[in-house]
Amino acid sequence: MMIYFDNAATTRPNGRAVQRAAQWLEGRFFNPSGLYREGLNVHGDLKEARQFLLSRIADPAEVCLIFTACGSESDNQALFSFGVRGNVVITGGEHAAVFAAAGELKNRGVELRIAPLHEDGSVNEEALLSLVDEKTSLVSVIHVNNETGAVNDVNAIAAAVKKKNARTVFHSDGVQAFGKIPYKMGAAVDLYSVSAHKIGGIKGVGGLFVRKKAYAALRPYIYGGGQEDGKRSGTENTFGIMQFRFAAEDKFAALTADHARLVAYREALWQGLDKAVFSRISPVDGSPYILTVSARGLRGETLLHLLDDQGLIVGTGSACSSNAKRRYSRVILACGRSEEEADGVLRLSFSPETTETEIERAVKILNDCAAELRKRMNIA
Amino acid sequence: MMIYFDNAATTRPNGRAVQRAAQWLEGRFFNPSGLYREGLNVHGDLKEARQFLLSRIADPAEVCLIFTACGSESDNQALFSFGVRGNVVITGGEHAAVFAAAGELKNRGVELRIAPLHEDGSVNEEALLSLVDEKTSLVSVIHVNNETGAVNDVNAIAAAVKKKNARTVFHSDGVQAFGKIPYKMGAAVDLYSVSAHKIGGIKGVGGLFVRKKAYAALRPYIYGGGQEDGKRSGTENTFGIMQFRFAAEDKFAALTADHARLVAYREALWQGLDKAVFSRISPVDGSPYILTVSARGLRGETLLHLLDDQGLIVGTGSACSSNAKRRYSRVILACGRSEEEADGVLRLSFSPETTETEIERAVKILNDCAAELRKRMNIA
Repeated sequence: MMIYFDNAATTRPNGRAVQRAAQWLEGRFFNPSGLYREGLNVHGDLKEARQFLLSRIADPAEVCLIFTACGSESDNQALFSFGVRGNVVITGGEHAAVFAAAGELKNRGVELRIAPLHEDGSVNEEALLSLVDEKTSLVSVIHVNNETGAVNDVNAIAAAVKKKNARTVFHSDGVQAFGKIPYKMGAAVDLYSVSAHKIGGIKGVGGLFVRKKAYAALRPYIYGGGQEDGKRSGTENTFGIMQFRFAAEDKFAALTADHARLVAYREALWQGLDKAVFSRISPVDGSPYILTVSARGLRGETLLHLLDDQGLIVGTGSACSSNAKRRYSRVILACGRSEEEADGVLRLSFSPETTETEIERAVKILNDCAAELRKRMNIA
Repeated sequence: MMIYFDNAATTRPNGRAVQRAAQWLEGRFFNPSGLYREGLNVHGDLKEARQFLLSRIADPAEVCLIFTACGSESDNQALFSFGVRGNVVITGGEHAAVFAAAGELKNRGVELRIAPLHEDGSVNEEALLSLVDEKTSLVSVIHVNNETGAVNDVNAIAAAVKKKNARTVFHSDGVQAFGKIPYKMGAAVDLYSVSAHKIGGIKGVGGLFVRKKAYAALRPYIYGGGQEDGKRSGTENTFGIMQFRFAAEDKFAALTADHARLVAYREALWQGLDKAVFSRISPVDGSPYILTVSARGLRGETLLHLLDDQGLIVGTGSACSSNAKRRYSRVILACGRSEEEADGVLRLSFSPETTETEIERAVKILNDCAAELRKRMNIA
């Protein structure tokens, strides 16, 4: 049986949620903008789904939720809405969607400031705050680093940012956090991006949580028929949204128990790995869903293929960076790691479906494949 | 049994295609950017789907296909990429996604020119061409008008536009045409928007066909991980894309037969309607998928609710305009119709699942409900 440890790239869709959504779709395929009863029913179901998801991490009286097509779209809408003048501060650990959108803002004349990381991938908060000034229009800090699992205390960082400049808008990419780590949006966090397919949803659905104070200034990302209160036109991905809602229901119900179990699994995996080969990049207090290691003297990508042959699927960093044809992960280098260490990176990422047996088998496969590869390469 | 005649708003998803895609998803839930074999397989399947869809209406050697989240996103990407300077020419019959995006271009300083319509909703070609000059950066003409079914000969119009200004980029919104009317992208058409959920696909998937000559200048609409060749980042909606591909396979295989049958059905429906009440807006040579009529002295929306109670679901124009809270359809007024006529509009739109029995029953329900409403309102 294949062991799938690339859940930070995408998860296997929650089958129960797929079934529920498919059943829903049978009688509810109508356009939610339809004026007849059947259209209004769909509209009502979307509203319920929105409220359900909202109330998982925020007070629906204070925060709105806009459905998008993916976490990347949510990030782009946040950055292009609020990073429009003065300077924008991000971290070196941002997901490609924030990093590339910020690069485009720079092309358009906004000053881009990038805060340095600690070696586990978390942001250096002091350095970040020193970059914020009276001209800072937006700060964006990833909640859980998708390559190392390091957790940034975005509520506290946002509050500190607002203390320096109350008009600065604060965004966080919460894609690897939503439904996985305990969290409620702090009062200083204005925008928060999430994605369905990291928690058992299908690909093609994302969300942008928007604090009501910031809502009026949020620019539409797609203009048209006025769906999503005019902030994101285009017929709603109704099946995907409902499946997301059902998957989130399961995920949030088990969040605390899953979290505790995966901390134990992650540590068991780390304990089992041959320390002569593997060094650890992920912090102990990071997300239990991610363990990133580096295999000394080996190329992560080569090792990945060997592991795949043995039935263990892992990542080498962000799936969203694999299109960039970069040899070294930008984020791992930003952690101050050497090119050699970056070259050997493997990201092992888990899901609530991960079992103890899988962890044990993965330890053996990882140690064996690394040893085999080192032998082939004549590494002592 | 409910009769669903609002297929221009959205169609019931093709059940066979949903099943095929769900089966596919079981073994292929991986991230297509994953470097392991399983990721590459998904990537390969998307490539095959892209080629399949491309070759339905274009020469894959000349045209690329970018997957988006909806027709509206495709329209926005086209307009914001190419409508960046001088003037932009659209028609009064454009879908809200083109119309609102063009409005935003105007806000940004581009001159917006709107070509008038004939009374059936098709564009006045001569008037359109007179608006094109050496400063026209983009022309956008809807292929099948979504409110009347009128077909614009976009290949011929595009060729005439290019004759006036060879550098002008030509876009067409083909959402109501793709898979429904026989069509191959003419050499002068640079961009063509389509949507899955109008032909049995699920909501949340669209496509933008881009002629290779225009490809380099197409701007990314979402920045990030570099998916879709860097033109549209964000993890691909793999389930939706595959389901779209399977639905399109069924749709294109039956296109000619469906077209002929629906012409007969549409005319039978029209023949059966009480001409003392209903006037026809849709042209005879328009898409057979749409019959738009106006009920004299009645409000379309009131009639819609009565019909809904009798089991007949119809539209009153574009579902994508229902959010605008406008009383009269912008497009119907642009056809030169009176406010009274616009007020009484009903759009009846069909699918290959539409049956002769449904047409017969719909005739009776329409005539009865209109008579009932006229009696209530004391209209002679």
